[in-house]
Amino acid sequence: MSQRLTIALDAMGGDHAPDMVIAGADIARERHPDVQFLLYGDAARVEPLVAKRAALKSVSEVIHTDDAVAADAKPSVALRAGRRSSMRLAIDAVAEGRAACVVSAGNTGALMAMAKFVLKTLPGVDRPAMASFFPTLRGESVMLDLGANTECTAENLVQFALMGSIFARTVLGLTEPTVGLLNIGSEDVKGNETVRGAATRLKEMPFPGRFYGFVEGNDIATGTTDVIVTDGFTGNVALKTAEGTAKLYTEFLRRTFQSSLTAKIGYLLARPAFQKLKARTDPRRYNGAMFLGLRGVCVKSHGGTDALGFANAIGVAANLATNGFNEKIKEEMQRLASANPIPDTKAAAV
Amino acid sequence: MSQRLTIALDAMGGDHAPDMVIAGADIARERHPDVQFLLYGDAARVEPLVAKRAALKSVSEVIHTDDAVAADAKPSVALRAGRRSSMRLAIDAVAEGRAACVVSAGNTGALMAMAKFVLKTLPGVDRPAMASFFPTLRGESVMLDLGANTECTAENLVQFALMGSIFARTVLGLTEPTVGLLNIGSEDVKGNETVRGAATRLKEMPFPGRFYGFVEGNDIATGTTDVIVTDGFTGNVALKTAEGTAKLYTEFLRRTFQSSLTAKIGYLLARPAFQKLKARTDPRRYNGAMFLGLRGVCVKSHGGTDALGFANAIGVAANLATNGFNEKIKEEMQRLASANPIPDTKAAAV
Repeated sequence: MSQRLTIALDAMGGDHAPDMVIAGADIARERHPDVQFLLYGDAARVEPLVAKRAALKSVSEVIHTDDAVAADAKPSVALRAGRRSSMRLAIDAVAEGRAACVVSAGNTGALMAMAKFVLKTLPGVDRPAMASFFPTLRGESVMLDLGANTECTAENLVQFALMGSIFARTVLGLTEPTVGLLNIGSEDVKGNETVRGAATRLKEMPFPGRFYGFVEGNDIATGTTDVIVTDGFTGNVALKTAEGTAKLYTEFLRRTFQSSLTAKIGYLLARPAFQKLKARTDPRRYNGAMFLGLRGVCVKSHGGTDALGFANAIGVAANLATNGFNEKIKEEMQRLASANPIPDTKAAAV
Repeated sequence: MSQRLTIALDAMGGDHAPDMVIAGADIARERHPDVQFLLYGDAARVEPLVAKRAALKSVSEVIHTDDAVAADAKPSVALRAGRRSSMRLAIDAVAEGRAACVVSAGNTGALMAMAKFVLKTLPGVDRPAMASFFPTLRGESVMLDLGANTECTAENLVQFALMGSIFARTVLGLTEPTVGLLNIGSEDVKGNETVRGAATRLKEMPFPGRFYGFVEGNDIATGTTDVIVTDGFTGNVALKTAEGTAKLYTEFLRRTFQSSLTAKIGYLLARPAFQKLKARTDPRRYNGAMFLGLRGVCVKSHGGTDALGFANAIGVAANLATNGFNEKIKEEMQRLASANPIPDTKAAAV
């Protein structure tokens, strides 16, 4: 077992847990033959699901707990009262070195609060951020923050830009990733003081990658930059607006193909091509938001996802854990702190 | 001429001005037989374009000016130095009662600054907001602010909600419009103090319409509420993210139909249906952002639009000018100020 990558799963998190979690783990096991699982949750429900899957059973350990974080629990309450919850125990496994990463489809706010409290932030990082992939005309981009930090300072945005760039280098394998700051215009005078302040800093500092400047909402889908940086409020609205628009177009498309007999026949002919398109834009493909900036890998799956989506989230976590992303962030933050001390933030003291 | 609705046009604003403006005016004239135009701009360029169109010529007056606001001019500079610009003279025509409304495809920031300075805000309105229509699964929604106010207070959002609701009543003809406040979750504890403060106020006040509570980015396309209220930064990002995603899907669709011979044949069969879809989701159909809250009707067209898009923006302005939207806002604000004085804002003093 020593060569294997151990992944801690919150078996009770998500709308369709624990079934979806266990089925997802089984798909992930097929895709990543070197993984093994610590499954935290109600053993009476989890064990029968694992028992049905012999290959999964051979690489899994079920750790029983009665407690689970409710989907609507306040993060502060979950943090205080959920010390024996499946979510918390799975995070603890990472903190205590028993697992390389943790995946949960449970309450986002609670997961963020617990992960931050238990794992702590990396040196030079004041606040962790949620990041995820977006489909673009050019391929894929990564955007952060998607909702962990409702209000951000210029310094927070600078740190997100650094983490995003290092992510693009280590995980996406880009040598010179471009990073854009989301704004409502590309000119220097646009936006609020926070984004303008962050842009000024990013232009002056020795940036690992290339700071592109301001980008706008439409640049997300165009793929103008490899990384898009924004505060958690704007990022969350942009993410969900994009998802909503994608659904709207899918529905318009469905109605269009249903609108006449010739259109229906047209669909039958174009169907194989549309199935490829569907696979490409499948939201499950982009499942797995990463909490960047913590001393440990924590990935949040959509609460409503199915086994396939959850398996993708596990894949994201395994990828982050194996390519040494956190070590790279640590190195880069130290390099920056010594090259360019930041007098006005905690980061400078590290 | 006295029964006609006079519309002032900035003939020099927009990437393809003045040609697109004059061609757009001609389309609008056909659609709205009761309109007449005041065309502000370089007579040497505008008059030949008008002369070619006899019907348009008979309902147009060209007012010459050498000056035009540059597309990249800073709003403050345009406001100071652009007193003889085509944009400013067109706005002046509304302020001086010579026109019922003004339409420009020029510099957004300059138009907003000039319109606010010249027309002033309505009683009870601290800041005007930019509003526009969005296609949804249910039909159309209206969203504001789309970029006029980068930073907003809770009171600003409350006023936007009121204006949006009155807009939905008078322009869309809805008797009980629903209004949602854009946030990153639907629970009361979500978001920042500004949106939470606005929600508290909107729940307590005698609201004209129905305050739905918080909505999320995906609710825009779903059409969960008739009106969506947000600050100008978030609204602008959401608008452009939706536009970008729509373009991405259109491109994916094009590639899909091109990807094989049978898919191409499928497209030929489904083509009439797709042309209907294209017409429905044509961005020109949604052209014409309205500045709500001013003592005069001012509509901003996309800078890059064509004649058809500009004609739609003229239609939006004509609609706002004829249905007494501003009078309704004034009435409603007075009613609210007397029913429920707001001690902490200027609005209370009106």
